[in-house]
Amino acid sequence: MSCSFGSKFKITVFGQSHSDCIGVVIDGVPAGIRLDMDAISAFMRRRAPGTGAHTTARKETDTPQILSGVVEGVTCGAPLCAIIQNENRRSGDYDALKNLPRPGHADFTAFEKYDGYADTRGGGNFSGRMTAPLCFAGAVAKQILADQGITIGAHIARLAKIDDAPFDPVGIDAQTLRQITEKDFPVFCDDEKAPMLAAIAAAKADGDSVGGVIECAAVGVPVGWGEPIFDSAESVIAHLAFGIPAVKGIEFGSGFAGADLRGSENNDAFALKDGVITTKTNRHGGILGGITSGQPLIFRTAIKPTPSIAKPQTTVHLQTLQEETITVGGRHDPCIVPRAVPCMEAVMAIALMNLK
Amino acid sequence: MSCSFGSKFKITVFGQSHSDCIGVVIDGVPAGIRLDMDAISAFMRRRAPGTGAHTTARKETDTPQILSGVVEGVTCGAPLCAIIQNENRRSGDYDALKNLPRPGHADFTAFEKYDGYADTRGGGNFSGRMTAPLCFAGAVAKQILADQGITIGAHIARLAKIDDAPFDPVGIDAQTLRQITEKDFPVFCDDEKAPMLAAIAAAKADGDSVGGVIECAAVGVPVGWGEPIFDSAESVIAHLAFGIPAVKGIEFGSGFAGADLRGSENNDAFALKDGVITTKTNRHGGILGGITSGQPLIFRTAIKPTPSIAKPQTTVHLQTLQEETITVGGRHDPCIVPRAVPCMEAVMAIALMNLK
Amino acid sequence: MSCSFGSKFKITVFGQSHSDCIGVVIDGVPAGIRLDMDAISAFMRRRAPGTGAHTTARKETDTPQILSGVVEGVTCGAPLCAIIQNENRRSGDYDALKNLPRPGHADFTAFEKYDGYADTRGGGNFSGRMTAPLCFAGAVAKQILADQGITIGAHIARLAKIDDAPFDPVGIDAQTLRQITEKDFPVFCDDEKAPMLAAIAAAKADGDSVGGVIECAAVGVPVGWGEPIFDSAESVIAHLAFGIPAVKGIEFGSGFAGADLRGSENNDAFALKDGVITTKTNRHGGILGGITSGQPLIFRTAIKPTPSIAKPQTTVHLQTLQEETITVGGRHDPCIVPRAVPCMEAVMAIALMNLK
Amino acid sequence: MSCSFGSKFKITVFGQSHSDCIGVVIDGVPAGIRLDMDAISAFMRRRAPGTGAHTTARKETDTPQILSGVVEGVTCGAPLCAIIQNENRRSGDYDALKNLPRPGHADFTAFEKYDGYADTRGGGNFSGRMTAPLCFAGAVAKQILADQGITIGAHIARLAKIDDAPFDPVGIDAQTLRQITEKDFPVFCDDEKAPMLAAIAAAKADGDSVGGVIECAAVGVPVGWGEPIFDSAESVIAHLAFGIPAVKGIEFGSGFAGADLRGSENNDAFALKDGVITTKTNRHGGILGGITSGQPLIFRTAIKPTPSIAKPQTTVHLQTLQEETITVGGRHDPCIVPRAVPCMEAVMAIALMNLK
Repeated sequence: MSCSFGSKFKITVFGQSHSDCIGVVIDGVPAGIRLDMDAISAFMRRRAPGTGAHTTARKETDTPQILSGVVEGVTCGAPLCAIIQNENRRSGDYDALKNLPRPGHADFTAFEKYDGYADTRGGGNFSGRMTAPLCFAGAVAKQILADQGITIGAHIARLAKIDDAPFDPVGIDAQTLRQITEKDFPVFCDDEKAPMLAAIAAAKADGDSVGGVIECAAVGVPVGWGEPIFDSAESVIAHLAFGIPAVKGIEFGSGFAGADLRGSENNDAFALKDGVITTKTNRHGGILGGITSGQPLIFRTAIKPTPSIAKPQTTVHLQTLQEETITVGGRHDPCIVPRAVPCMEAVMAIALMNLK
Repeated sequence: MSCSFGSKFKITVFGQSHSDCIGVVIDGVPAGIRLDMDAISAFMRRRAPGTGAHTTARKETDTPQILSGVVEGVTCGAPLCAIIQNENRRSGDYDALKNLPRPGHADFTAFEKYDGYADTRGGGNFSGRMTAPLCFAGAVAKQILADQGITIGAHIARLAKIDDAPFDPVGIDAQTLRQITEKDFPVFCDDEKAPMLAAIAAAKADGDSVGGVIECAAVGVPVGWGEPIFDSAESVIAHLAFGIPAVKGIEFGSGFAGADLRGSENNDAFALKDGVITTKTNRHGGILGGITSGQPLIFRTAIKPTPSIAKPQTTVHLQTLQEETITVGGRHDPCIVPRAVPCMEAVMAIALMNLK
Repeated sequence: MSCSFGSKFKITVFGQSHSDCIGVVIDGVPAGIRLDMDAISAFMRRRAPGTGAHTTARKETDTPQILSGVVEGVTCGAPLCAIIQNENRRSGDYDALKNLPRPGHADFTAFEKYDGYADTRGGGNFSGRMTAPLCFAGAVAKQILADQGITIGAHIARLAKIDDAPFDPVGIDAQTLRQITEKDFPVFCDDEKAPMLAAIAAAKADGDSVGGVIECAAVGVPVGWGEPIFDSAESVIAHLAFGIPAVKGIEFGSGFAGADLRGSENNDAFALKDGVITTKTNRHGGILGGITSGQPLIFRTAIKPTPSIAKPQTTVHLQTLQEETITVGGRHDPCIVPRAVPCMEAVMAIALMNLK
Repeated sequence: MSCSFGSKFKITVFGQSHSDCIGVVIDGVPAGIRLDMDAISAFMRRRAPGTGAHTTARKETDTPQILSGVVEGVTCGAPLCAIIQNENRRSGDYDALKNLPRPGHADFTAFEKYDGYADTRGGGNFSGRMTAPLCFAGAVAKQILADQGITIGAHIARLAKIDDAPFDPVGIDAQTLRQITEKDFPVFCDDEKAPMLAAIAAAKADGDSVGGVIECAAVGVPVGWGEPIFDSAESVIAHLAFGIPAVKGIEFGSGFAGADLRGSENNDAFALKDGVITTKTNRHGGILGGITSGQPLIFRTAIKPTPSIAKPQTTVHLQTLQEETITVGGRHDPCIVPRAVPCMEAVMAIALMNLK
């Protein structure tokens, strides 16, 4: 396990899907900040299960309880610890699967790594549920960054092969980002919402699931954050992003599409705007040489289709070594993408707190 | 700057494109290893400039000189330091550019971050030249891993929109990987070599450049490497990969394409093979839950087109704040992709040494 | 704040003297260990307040509650989080002192460092109470080390200028260490117990306090632990030891006394014993060149007299900048040394888990 | 090996006593600093061998050669690498000792840890010679700190049981510290110089050695440096100090003597001086709760007598396992204390750069 991330705003998460609770310790929160608990709760609700027809039936209120680091609502400089109760556990759902690793999950690798002692109930600490404490930390980070003029937002860029309009890499602004984060289904082209939801419903009806791509942006980031050579903005963001279960790819700016361009098409010419140097275009995604350029910081992540599906799948019994067919019960999202949107904002916020 | 990477096999690089030399300190090399200097040199030559018509005219022999950590050819447990002389410097090429940041380069962000004191000659320590010491460390790592039955290889998966055949995610083996690394232009489909070289030549004739995608694989990696939650195999590899200039995206296994699949299409069923549990397919890229699964470990990186191009580009003078037009002289690769291939193998090797 | 320590057995503590609870996250506990909760509780009781006439009147049961990392009593490889409730808070005791920094305490420096927002109730997170989660982690570490044949124990070497007999640096063995840790007042010379307790009582009667020296040993540590140059056994142990409030000095083996010897007196000649190489004497404290030698590992720490005393002291009001006289109320130990004994064992155990 | 220290001003040392050269990479040097190479050389000369009758006959000019990180004498933000040639190697001196571990040295533990492959010539990378690159880094740190009004100095507090006058814990000032560092034999009481030198000469005549205590101070350190709980000022300084061979103890402020005092004697009352809060006395050594208090920061380290002595000693042959008698030849200091004085200043300077 490596449950800690960061050096300046260091988070340590703990808990499993079916332990008493899950939580996070944050070291590096400045003293004197009055935490906006309403905003934190609103942010966490965006990730919480059970808030839409397209999500798992597991209901969790996901109310964070602060154990330390705050005195009368204001941070005191000591490590901030918050926990979230695991209220709605039905471990029995998983008993039948104890020795039958689910395809696409960590069950098999965790079994091998932890000598058979891994907590497999609900995915243990590999569960997507572990993103709840991450989102708590992300909400705190977002509040601190907002006080510095930095706004973060993300949207569903693609789902079941249906594209939303991308961010305008140069024109994206704080207001647009705030608006997109207020939507219950965060896409720019509202016309795409219905087909996306239909694709999720169709997959669910088939006992199947779909994946997608999330695009995340931060505006207001000053020039000069990021530490080359090995702690570039890309390195730090990517490191944390791959801590989110289901992320299997990340790209910055023009990314993989940029690899198909010529240099003259991909380079961003410099220009003077309002007296400061900037670029005319933003194919570099706000990062040059690993250092923030002042342009909007933009990344996209590939989210694999939820591996928990009701369709029959082949696996191997861990004890008998016999091949068996399983159907994964429990309560699962046919598409994790919408709930992963705030997770990507949390990734951006926590990474930025460690880059500055 | 953050010039160190890793905890178990920790590398610290130093130097700039035009400093006296560049080098690396490696901490964590086991004692008692007789370094195969011929293999190390052969590996570094694959990255070295001036070995093909498609590369920069800057010639460097790139012979590593070991300063410490080795006694009579055998490692002694002390930190291994190797330096490479910067023989062929023509800093004068860069004087004219001192105040004119090149589009797509770190010149502007470095100027801001280091208060105008950054070494801009040849890209300073943002130069691709810094991958030479990285490749030295990678060659050492590859040798150690090879003794444990792990083989690493990479190829040009795509260049100027021309695709090579991808790795067979399940069938790729050590012999195939060794063969591809012995090619002077590493593609599987030799028929694609000529069009790729033609595309590079065409870009060069236009004073332009092209990018591409590199695919890298490791076979023989045991089950169980990688530390979830935050030091997953993906996190550690991605962190290091983005330390290579020009990398703007990374994906594992089915990656972005997998995000378009349904769960039933993307999941890899488990199967018994030769008495051990494995998967029938390998869309997970050898990593499940951040932990290696025993299947070939596969990633692809997006390499942006070389930003140094001879075509006129617009920039802003750092002192006068006037927009100016520049053409970037010096000696540059119209395509960095072929030389970046061993760099990706170095990334894989160094990352694996830190995961195990 | 830096609330984390270690790389292999990494602890992250949180909480303040008067927060809802205090706790610790441990990353790196091997999977498959059945935690001996009785032994853990017994160890923590040795540190707990209110167990003797010589300690504070603040009563805390200090029962650890495990939140994560354990399934049916057995560790699962996930981070182990345990919390301890702060049951017996009387924050009112501290209201009068809010702006009057207590001499010898962190009140003033914390006020400055945290811009006036530090939690000063009961010392906040500078409180000796934070050693409770440390002792929980230490108890877990001791259990794991015991399974490997390593035994740790400590005693009061000196208190109010009264000396106990020191460890026999070569002859100290596991049984002796276990016996000393079972004493309610851990000294070898039981004749010294009465005068030591009398000195504490006398100081208390005077509204004053006394300090002392604790000696800690580990036997069964194999040859070869510790990473020179900068993570020597001494460095790692000392780093953690100074995390305990009141520790102001540490020495290994002959330590400061050894600095008065000649080389011929301080060197330990090598000898063969039971077929293995060892030393005839052990003035090196079990560490040579930062690496464990196989001899008992021995350190001593200087514990300053409890700074909380009832005698009138001069301080400066943080807001008015007027000098004032205070007497520190609350419930305090006239001597912290006995309760610090298990803390030193925890330091040794946690440090060793990170050295191996 | 762990050859790196620090996070903000991170040093990585490499080399062995008899490798081609030794060196250091410093990451975190601000850009734009014109290095005062004369001051750096002067500082390193204080540590260099062969500058007095009381030191080893091994002559080294110890001139640092800067490989990277500096452009035309000014730092550029890139990692600063400096090497020092090992000019005067007589490895033959050590051939006879290859299998005969010297008492008090790391030979035996290194042999075991590195499976017989450790470089034992001259102590390999356990050699006191490795403090040369540390002193280079310390000199750079001292220059940066001096620009911020911080002055560091150290003196021989005790040698062969002869005491120098201690620092005045409150009154010590920058001028006094600068003066003591300019002495070729840094003691306050010049009357003690002759007896100390006589004690060294007497030990040398006997084929023996002596040890001592060094006291180091820093003035001008602002209130608020150091990160409790686990990266307190004491923890960080002690961690680095124990990286110096021969250090076996460290204490801050009143240290071990303070453990004999009562609280009323050891506490430092607060007072107002020139409008700012400070303490009337400084038994806390400038650190309260792990955080700097603004008072002079003071520590003392115990330096063991040089283990290399000409007197016959018993050891065990590593291959034959036979006890043998050796006399250690080579060129050794009968007392390392004077040359360790600048090393302690380097420890203070590098630690402070990482605390601020």
